[in-house]
Amino acid sequence: MTDSQLAKLRDQVDEINLQILELLNKRAEIVLQIGNEKKKQGVTRFDPVRERQSLDMILEHHNGPFEPSTIKHIFKEIFKASLELQEEDYEQTLLV
Amino acid sequence: MTDSQLAKLRDQVDEINLQILELLNKRAEIVLQIGNEKKKQGVTRFDPVRERQSLDMILEHHNGPFEPSTIKHIFKEIFKASLELQEEDYEQTLLV
Repeated sequence: MTDSQLAKLRDQVDEINLQILELLNKRAEIVLQIGNEKKKQGVTRFDPVRERQSLDMILEHHNGPFEPSTIKHIFKEIFKASLELQEEDYEQTLLV
Repeated sequence: MTDSQLAKLRDQVDEINLQILELLNKRAEIVLQIGNEKKKQGVTRFDPVRERQSLDMILEHHNGPFEPSTIKHIFKEIFKASLELQEEDYEQTLLV
Protein backbone atom coordinates (compact mmCIF):
# COMPACT_ATOMS: atom_id res chain seq x y z
CA MET A 1 0.00 0.00 0.00
CA THR A 2 1.37 3.41 -0.92
CA ASP A 3 1.15 6.46 1.32
CA SER A 4 -1.47 7.91 -1.02
CA GLN A 5 -3.60 4.79 -0.56
CA LEU A 6 -3.28 5.21 3.20
CA ALA A 7 -4.28 8.88 2.83
CA LYS A 8 -7.30 7.77 0.79
CA LEU A 9 -8.41 5.42 3.57
CA ARG A 10 -8.04 8.25 6.08
CA ASP A 11 -10.16 10.49 3.86
CA GLN A 12 -12.82 7.81 3.89
CA VAL A 13 -12.73 7.74 7.71
CA ASP A 14 -13.06 11.55 7.79
CA GLU A 15 -16.02 11.35 5.43
CA ILE A 16 -17.70 8.72 7.62
CA ASN A 17 -17.02 10.82 10.75
CA LEU A 18 -18.95 13.70 9.18
CA GLN A 19 -21.80 11.41 8.17
CA ILE A 20 -21.99 10.10 11.76
CA LEU A 21 -21.94 13.70 13.04
CA GLU A 22 -24.82 14.63 10.75
CA LEU A 23 -26.86 11.62 11.88
CA LEU A 24 -26.15 12.33 15.57
CA ASN A 25 -27.48 15.86 15.22
CA LYS A 26 -30.45 14.79 13.09
CA ARG A 27 -31.20 12.22 15.81
CA ALA A 28 -30.88 14.92 18.49
CA GLU A 29 -33.42 17.14 16.69
CA ILE A 30 -35.98 14.32 16.67
CA VAL A 31 -35.23 13.38 20.27
CA LEU A 32 -35.92 16.99 21.28
CA GLN A 33 -39.31 16.84 19.54
CA ILE A 34 -40.10 13.59 21.36
CA GLY A 35 -39.00 15.17 24.67
CA ASN A 36 -41.25 18.17 24.13
CA GLU A 37 -44.19 15.95 23.37
CA LYS A 38 -43.59 13.80 26.44
CA LYS A 39 -43.39 16.97 28.52
CA LYS A 40 -46.79 18.09 27.19
CA GLN A 41 -48.27 14.68 27.98
CA GLY A 42 -46.70 14.90 31.44
CA VAL A 43 -44.81 11.63 31.08
CA THR A 44 -41.27 10.95 32.20
CA ARG A 45 -38.56 11.44 29.60
CA PHE A 46 -36.40 8.46 30.54
CA ASP A 47 -37.98 5.24 29.37
CA PRO A 48 -35.77 2.23 30.21
CA VAL A 49 -38.06 -0.20 28.34
CA ARG A 50 -37.80 1.82 25.15
CA GLU A 51 -34.01 2.08 25.59
CA ARG A 52 -33.73 -1.68 26.06
CA GLN A 53 -35.82 -2.29 22.92
CA SER A 54 -33.70 0.16 20.91
CA LEU A 55 -30.48 -1.53 22.03
CA ASP A 56 -31.85 -5.00 21.27
CA MET A 57 -32.90 -3.88 17.80
CA ILE A 58 -29.46 -2.37 17.14
CA LEU A 59 -27.65 -5.52 18.34
CA GLU A 60 -29.90 -7.75 16.20
CA HIS A 61 -28.73 -5.81 13.14
CA HIS A 62 -25.08 -5.75 14.18
CA ASN A 63 -22.65 -8.10 12.44
CA GLY A 64 -19.18 -6.74 13.28
CA PRO A 65 -16.32 -6.04 13.15
CA PHE A 66 -16.91 -4.27 16.49
CA GLU A 67 -17.75 -6.48 19.47
CA PRO A 68 -21.47 -6.26 20.40
CA SER A 69 -20.39 -4.93 23.83
CA THR A 70 -18.57 -2.04 22.11
CA ILE A 71 -21.62 -1.16 20.02
CA LYS A 72 -23.75 -1.31 23.17
CA HIS A 73 -21.33 1.01 24.97
CA ILE A 74 -21.23 3.60 22.16
CA PHE A 75 -25.02 3.67 21.82
CA LYS A 76 -25.49 3.95 25.59
CA GLU A 77 -23.32 7.08 25.43
CA ILE A 78 -25.51 8.42 22.60
CA PHE A 79 -28.70 7.66 24.56
CA LYS A 80 -27.26 9.31 27.69
CA ALA A 81 -26.28 12.43 25.75
CA SER A 82 -29.74 12.58 24.18
CA LEU A 83 -31.44 12.38 27.56
CA GLU A 84 -29.21 15.16 28.91
CA LEU A 85 -30.14 17.25 25.89
CA GLN A 86 -33.86 16.76 26.60
CA GLU A 87 -33.27 17.73 30.24
CA GLU A 88 -31.33 20.89 29.34
CA ASP A 89 -34.12 21.82 26.94
CA TYR A 90 -36.70 21.25 29.70
CA GLU A 91 -34.73 23.38 32.19
CA GLN A 92 -34.49 26.18 29.66
CA THR A 93 -38.27 26.07 29.27
CA LEU A 94 -38.67 26.42 33.04
CA LEU A 95 -36.40 29.48 33.07
CA VAL A 96 -38.36 31.34 30.38
CA MET B 1 -49.28 15.44 18.48
CA THR B 2 -51.03 12.09 18.32
CA ASP B 3 -49.56 8.85 19.59
CA SER B 4 -49.04 7.74 16.01
CA GLN B 5 -46.99 10.88 15.30
CA LEU B 6 -44.87 10.08 18.37
CA ALA B 7 -44.48 6.51 17.08
CA LYS B 8 -43.39 7.92 13.73
CA LEU B 9 -40.68 10.03 15.38
CA ARG B 10 -39.48 6.96 17.26
CA ASP B 11 -39.33 5.02 14.01
CA GLN B 12 -37.15 7.80 12.60
CA VAL B 13 -34.81 7.49 15.59
CA ASP B 14 -34.64 3.70 15.09
CA GLU B 15 -33.83 4.23 11.42
CA ILE B 16 -31.05 6.70 12.28
CA ASN B 17 -29.68 4.28 14.92
CA LEU B 18 -29.28 1.62 12.22
CA GLN B 19 -27.63 4.11 9.86
CA ILE B 20 -25.16 5.07 12.62
CA LEU B 21 -24.54 1.36 13.30
CA GLU B 22 -23.79 0.76 9.62
CA LEU B 23 -21.38 3.71 9.48
CA LEU B 24 -19.62 2.62 12.69
CA ASN B 25 -18.94 -0.82 11.24
CA LYS B 26 -17.95 0.56 7.84
CA ARG B 27 -15.56 2.88 9.68
CA ALA B 28 -14.20 -0.07 11.69
CA GLU B 29 -13.45 -2.02 8.48
CA ILE B 30 -11.39 0.87 7.13
CA VAL B 31 -9.65 1.43 10.46
CA LEU B 32 -8.62 -2.24 10.45
CA GLN B 33 -7.09 -1.80 6.99
CA ILE B 34 -5.20 1.29 8.21
CA GLY B 35 -4.02 -0.64 11.29
CA ASN B 36 -2.72 -3.51 9.17
CA GLU B 37 -0.85 -1.12 6.93
CA LYS B 38 0.71 0.69 9.87
CA LYS B 39 1.76 -2.66 11.30
CA LYS B 40 3.49 -3.54 8.01
CA GLN B 41 5.23 -0.18 8.03
CA GLY B 42 6.21 -0.79 11.65
CA VAL B 43 4.66 2.44 12.89
CA THR B 44 2.64 2.88 16.06
CA ARG B 45 -1.11 2.56 15.73
CA PHE B 46 -2.09 5.36 18.09
CA ASP B 47 -1.49 8.73 16.51
CA PRO B 48 -2.56 11.58 18.85
CA VAL B 49 -1.89 14.25 16.20
CA ARG B 50 -4.17 12.53 13.70
CA GLU B 51 -6.84 12.09 16.44
CA ARG B 52 -6.62 15.79 17.32
CA GLN B 53 -6.97 16.78 13.64
CA SER B 54 -9.97 14.46 13.20
CA LEU B 55 -11.70 15.92 16.26
CA ASP B 56 -10.99 19.50 15.16
CA MET B 57 -12.41 18.76 11.71
CA ILE B 58 -15.55 17.21 13.24
CA LEU B 59 -16.08 20.15 15.60
CA GLU B 60 -15.62 22.66 12.77
CA HIS B 61 -18.53 21.00 10.95
CA HIS B 62 -20.70 20.72 14.06
CA ASN B 63 -23.59 23.10 14.49
CA GLY B 64 -25.82 21.60 17.18
CA PRO B 65 -28.10 20.79 18.86
CA PHE B 66 -25.61 18.72 20.85
CA GLU B 67 -22.99 20.65 22.84
CA PRO B 68 -19.53 20.48 21.17
CA SER B 69 -18.25 18.78 24.36
CA THR B 70 -20.84 16.01 23.92
CA ILE B 71 -19.83 15.44 20.28
CA LYS B 72 -16.20 15.36 21.37
CA HIS B 73 -17.00 12.80 24.07
CA ILE B 74 -18.95 10.50 21.72
CA PHE B 75 -16.24 10.58 19.05
CA LYS B 76 -13.50 9.96 21.62
CA GLU B 77 -15.39 6.79 22.58
CA ILE B 78 -15.53 5.80 18.89
CA PHE B 79 -11.80 6.47 18.46
CA LYS B 80 -10.99 4.48 21.60
CA ALA B 81 -13.09 1.53 20.43
CA SER B 82 -11.40 1.65 17.01
CA LEU B 83 -7.94 1.58 18.55
CA GLU B 84 -8.92 -1.38 20.73
CA LEU B 85 -10.18 -3.15 17.62
CA GLN B 86 -6.83 -2.62 15.87
CA GLU B 87 -5.02 -3.94 18.94
CA GLU B 88 -7.22 -7.06 19.15
CA ASP B 89 -6.60 -7.65 15.45
CA TYR B 90 -2.85 -7.29 16.01
CA GLU B 91 -2.87 -9.71 18.97
CA GLN B 92 -4.76 -12.25 16.89
CA THR B 93 -2.06 -12.00 14.22
CA LEU B 94 0.59 -12.69 16.84
CA LEU B 95 -1.26 -15.79 18.03
CA VAL B 96 -1.48 -17.36 14.55
